[in-house]
Amino acid sequence: MRDEQETYLFSSDYLKDFSAKVFAYFGVPSADARQAADVLAKSDLRGIDSHGVARLHTYFDMLALGKINPKPKITIIREKLSVASVDGDNGLGLVVGPKANEIAMEKAEQYGSGWVSVCHTNHFGIAGYYPLKALERDLIGWAMTNTTKLVAPLWGAERMLGTNPIAIAFPGYKEPPIVIDMATSAVAYGKIEMALRKKEKIPRGWIVDKEGRMTTEPQDMIDGGAQLPLGSERELGGHKGYALAAMVDIMCCVLSGANWGPFAPPFALRQEIPTRSVGKGIGHLFGAMRIDGFIDKDEFKKQIDEWIRVFRKTRPAPGTNGPLIPGDPEREAEAIRGKEGIPLLKPVVDELLDISKKTGIPFEIR
Amino acid sequence: MRDEQETYLFSSDYLKDFSAKVFAYFGVPSADARQAADVLAKSDLRGIDSHGVARLHTYFDMLALGKINPKPKITIIREKLSVASVDGDNGLGLVVGPKANEIAMEKAEQYGSGWVSVCHTNHFGIAGYYPLKALERDLIGWAMTNTTKLVAPLWGAERMLGTNPIAIAFPGYKEPPIVIDMATSAVAYGKIEMALRKKEKIPRGWIVDKEGRMTTEPQDMIDGGAQLPLGSERELGGHKGYALAAMVDIMCCVLSGANWGPFAPPFALRQEIPTRSVGKGIGHLFGAMRIDGFIDKDEFKKQIDEWIRVFRKTRPAPGTNGPLIPGDPEREAEAIRGKEGIPLLKPVVDELLDISKKTGIPFEIR
Repeated sequence: MRDEQETYLFSSDYLKDFSAKVFAYFGVPSADARQAADVLAKSDLRGIDSHGVARLHTYFDMLALGKINPKPKITIIREKLSVASVDGDNGLGLVVGPKANEIAMEKAEQYGSGWVSVCHTNHFGIAGYYPLKALERDLIGWAMTNTTKLVAPLWGAERMLGTNPIAIAFPGYKEPPIVIDMATSAVAYGKIEMALRKKEKIPRGWIVDKEGRMTTEPQDMIDGGAQLPLGSERELGGHKGYALAAMVDIMCCVLSGANWGPFAPPFALRQEIPTRSVGKGIGHLFGAMRIDGFIDKDEFKKQIDEWIRVFRKTRPAPGTNGPLIPGDPEREAEAIRGKEGIPLLKPVVDELLDISKKTGIPFEIR
Repeated sequence: MRDEQETYLFSSDYLKDFSAKVFAYFGVPSADARQAADVLAKSDLRGIDSHGVARLHTYFDMLALGKINPKPKITIIREKLSVASVDGDNGLGLVVGPKANEIAMEKAEQYGSGWVSVCHTNHFGIAGYYPLKALERDLIGWAMTNTTKLVAPLWGAERMLGTNPIAIAFPGYKEPPIVIDMATSAVAYGKIEMALRKKEKIPRGWIVDKEGRMTTEPQDMIDGGAQLPLGSERELGGHKGYALAAMVDIMCCVLSGANWGPFAPPFALRQEIPTRSVGKGIGHLFGAMRIDGFIDKDEFKKQIDEWIRVFRKTRPAPGTNGPLIPGDPEREAEAIRGKEGIPLLKPVVDELLDISKKTGIPFEIR
């Protein structure tokens, strides 16, 4: 018998096809359903297991209960040449995100740069998906989003901000692109869950308990604690991680009219409902920049190649193989998983089987 | 007798006037000299002592030796509506920065956003100066710069990146603005110097020694060590601080044609000359965004007020008064110093007296 840590392998295409059918089951138009499935598939391919089909059951729940609009009318609320704000009409973030990102990229092509802030949307998958799209068009891409509150501002004792990720990508010439995709919290929430499951302590600097005291007990997070921002504490720069999370919150939400800070609506059913609403849905920000508005495109890409090579040659710290280039781990995962398939843990497979049972969409373990 | 830690008080205007005369002494045109002095004065007013007149002697040295062009011809190399790159002609960063920032702000007014990457420039003072200028025009402002290498990428054992700061500001309605101004290193270099002077140990996570090992001895930094990026180590997110520093490096330098990474030219004479040149001077990036291209301006500002008030009410962690709002410490310093004057340490005063002696520009201790 396999235990919870054992994995089952699936091809990315099989999972993508299943996800698309699930979205379509709820009336999501087929192109949108395929788009949403593509974001989840990219996450699984790139090794970010927490944001792939592991979340499909949450989307399923939200759609089943009518909490997400399967057929949103996505509209530009306001614009001024290179900038705009978009109302996602409570659609899937996996659909609203790619459309708003498309608007940013079109603006970049036309005006040199494009910046789109989005309200009334939902969770958009991995932030890194969006700048990867920009790379396909030889643009520098940016994406940010707020998320449900988990993080305390430095010196705070309660959850006030999401893990608010920032993603940015730069294309190389012969080298692969530099792809930054990082939460502004010290650590991903999934790592705390994992420690909890393994009954292990966590490093000092990841969380505070419900009184705001540093703790190494992962259970303290569940019992009303909060994650710490990047930098963790004052003397290591915790105020900087907090400032970055605040910046993301403001660019995505205050600028678009979405719910900022502690008022971000929950992603999943089991999460707490905010005390009040200060806008519509959650918020994203997408940016794109035309390289050739600044410098010759090939010259830029060749310098990026050189940057990568110089940084790869950095003298390594003891016990390491030296610095990575941002995006290395995800690209390596994609190369392996594209060939060998996506390993899913038993609890995730069980959730997909449950969706299959409830919808009648076939899902088979090989 | 006063010791090195004792301070002398000067009015901001007196120091600004002195700095302007020093720049003019080297042939910097008077409007530029006043502009450069204004950047230094703002830094001293806002309590960032390391970037104010404490650096005037370094500018003096560089100008005296002809290492900086007092009369640069600042030109747009390339542009595409909302974006441009600028060549600073090896001028003072304190002059090139404000001009390039001006271009970004004009573009924002015209095209909704403006993004200007700058090469062939020098140290531009505090990054926060530039978004503060954007606030005067009701714009969201961004600024970044690379700096001389001090920081090791995560898992590296040598200096490869500067402390590469990011500054962003958002205007409030009745509340003061939110002003983020942060290096992407775990800590400011000045704090290591201070520990060294006081013969104190430093916290784990600030630096590695010349072999790349974590150390709490500040002397190890002087002896060929390197600062750590925000996050400090892998399990606390050191790869994220490194990624942010890399982003700044690429946006400021690769995009403009400046010297990136370890090739950034030295700010001061005593600093190491890079092994090779991959571009011109150092690099900056300025950005500005029109709020009303996204949302009603007053609505935005009122939500910022509300954001500030909600975050000020965060339940405090034990032993603290609760979270600050980014920009609080600098604004409070400005309120006090604007009235009481700028406190300068004796070694800084001695440097100004030395400049006075060498140039004949009067400088008096009250």
